[in-house]
Amino acid sequence: MKVQGRDFRTVWVEAEARARMEEGGPLEVSMIDQRRLPHEFAVTTIPDHAAMAEAIRTMIVRGAPAIGAAGAYGMAQVYAEAERQRDREAFIEEGYQRLWQSRPTAQDLFFNLKEVRRAAEASGPERRAAAALDEAERLARDNAERCRRIGEHGAKLIRKHTRVMTHCNAGWLATVDWGTAISPIYVAHREGRTPHVLTSETRPRLQGANLTAWELGQEGIPYEIFADSASASLIRAGAVDLIITGADRIAANGDAANKIGTYEKALAAREHGVPFYIAAPASTFDLDCPSGADIPIEERSEEELLYTWGRNDAGELVRVRTAPEGARAKNPAFDVTPAKLITGLITEYGIIEPTTEAIARTLGAPAKR
Amino acid sequence: MKVQGRDFRTVWVEAEARARMEEGGPLEVSMIDQRRLPHEFAVTTIPDHAAMAEAIRTMIVRGAPAIGAAGAYGMAQVYAEAERQRDREAFIEEGYQRLWQSRPTAQDLFFNLKEVRRAAEASGPERRAAAALDEAERLARDNAERCRRIGEHGAKLIRKHTRVMTHCNAGWLATVDWGTAISPIYVAHREGRTPHVLTSETRPRLQGANLTAWELGQEGIPYEIFADSASASLIRAGAVDLIITGADRIAANGDAANKIGTYEKALAAREHGVPFYIAAPASTFDLDCPSGADIPIEERSEEELLYTWGRNDAGELVRVRTAPEGARAKNPAFDVTPAKLITGLITEYGIIEPTTEAIARTLGAPAKR
Repeated sequence: MKVQGRDFRTVWVEAEARARMEEGGPLEVSMIDQRRLPHEFAVTTIPDHAAMAEAIRTMIVRGAPAIGAAGAYGMAQVYAEAERQRDREAFIEEGYQRLWQSRPTAQDLFFNLKEVRRAAEASGPERRAAAALDEAERLARDNAERCRRIGEHGAKLIRKHTRVMTHCNAGWLATVDWGTAISPIYVAHREGRTPHVLTSETRPRLQGANLTAWELGQEGIPYEIFADSASASLIRAGAVDLIITGADRIAANGDAANKIGTYEKALAAREHGVPFYIAAPASTFDLDCPSGADIPIEERSEEELLYTWGRNDAGELVRVRTAPEGARAKNPAFDVTPAKLITGLITEYGIIEPTTEAIARTLGAPAKR
Repeated sequence: MKVQGRDFRTVWVEAEARARMEEGGPLEVSMIDQRRLPHEFAVTTIPDHAAMAEAIRTMIVRGAPAIGAAGAYGMAQVYAEAERQRDREAFIEEGYQRLWQSRPTAQDLFFNLKEVRRAAEASGPERRAAAALDEAERLARDNAERCRRIGEHGAKLIRKHTRVMTHCNAGWLATVDWGTAISPIYVAHREGRTPHVLTSETRPRLQGANLTAWELGQEGIPYEIFADSASASLIRAGAVDLIITGADRIAANGDAANKIGTYEKALAAREHGVPFYIAAPASTFDLDCPSGADIPIEERSEEELLYTWGRNDAGELVRVRTAPEGARAKNPAFDVTPAKLITGLITEYGIIEPTTEAIARTLGAPAKR
């Protein structure tokens, strides 16, 4: 999507970087440093796979599909670096493990690491690095394409000036391109039906105020940030026509885990008859997980709630403490929205009902990835 | 309530200050500077009524009952200062107007200004200042006493370890003493049934994280701060036994306007069978206002959402920007919770049903104040 008028993806390999690798050099990967957004737009170069594992760990890149793509490129870096090692196989195994451990619960990451390794090992030994990079590129393109298709299906719900509420960041920054919940907004905008977006602030990590707002602004889509507390009141006041959020994991019965605060928007939407959609690619569905009750909810650090990060008047990114000394906090990071509150699931295969049958029919084993 | 182990009210007159006034001097009023909480506890001395109007305007004191008490003392300052003026009557009228205009919608302030003026004018001309101060003291005591009675009625809902959720700050800092929603918690704690409190952060102005958390900590009551987005999820998870919030205005039919975010807690409470109470003194009820639809909702400045105030690592109170340059925000400050979602109204006269009949019976014209 657009940044300062130019097209970007969250993570990519420049043509020159590929050429250097093909001449036997290491593989440099480019990525947007998301920790500095929205205050500064910076592209960082990741020189090797160890730096990639660190970039994933420190959230230079975040969002399951974007992390998956970064991991795939990281695995290609492992193969490029292995060429200059005495014990190549041990090096590849170590690199694979290091990337695998960079984030605890990233399904896309694990899937992609396996895929890149499989593709590399299936090629001739002299061109494993090139084959690994080809596979990483294919996986990145595949994610962008699935997200674009989510956008095309979801855009049918949007007319000109439709007021769309969203939560957290399920935009292109969380994926390779296009995003999930925001993809329908981008597609509708490019088709001339620009909606008005209401994005929550999304405490404690502020992904809405920091990332969704920035993305939309760069694409020229009008938006307003609202306090997380205001969602039900805005829905009740008739200020919202449609709600679309992303999901971190969707169970076989359609229950969806997503950023804390999604559930209360769904409750208010039902109360006031506003349609509530979840947008996610097939890889977000976990058909081995029967229902939302089986999804563990991560409790994150108290620090996230006791402090807020932002840019001070001198332009520096700093934290400020908002709670008293000695304060304790309760910080569940996700909640589960039951399928009964979800109007539909926007996937790359179309908009489907949140029922066990419809999900199995559309995303059953053969079509799962 | 307790601060560093000593008893405080939000606003008061020291015995020495009263003595100086009785000898013909000005009247100094003491108050807690709430803008620096929770990071610094500071008592400020307000030297005259002009400084008092400024203190109210700049939110050194906030919360309708606390503002009302500050205004009453301010009116006593007007009478003390008038003694040294050539045109006393013009000075009194000007001071009255200046205090009246210090905040736009503070019912308690207007009521108290009228009461102090009435009491002063009813006394002999030579002791108007003393009569005004007597009346201000009476009004402050009356508010503290009403709040204590709210606490006694509400405390019956609390057992040991009851997990009470609250929102914003309806504690003693918003009143003269005891508070409204938090008063039952203080009473139960002193009766040996200490509950566990879950206080929302309350973006954008953070009254929960800044003030409620600090109050509870000073009284030694255990609490956790949670992100505003987490309320429905915590209620659903069974982490909440009881919800009590304050109110800014309650209509004749029981609909209650309060800090944005109250409504969504009430919706989630009904969904999961958790009792939801509003605590407020009789002065919060507006029997001339038929229903919540007649309560205008204040939209506050976008700046509140684009920035967060807190203490930086150097200990200074600063703001940080969390939104991109050019961002817009939607900032409704209050919402209305319909009576049908309210389990009961905790008043100084007891816990009453949120119905037109019960409210009129308990708070009808003769008993209204």
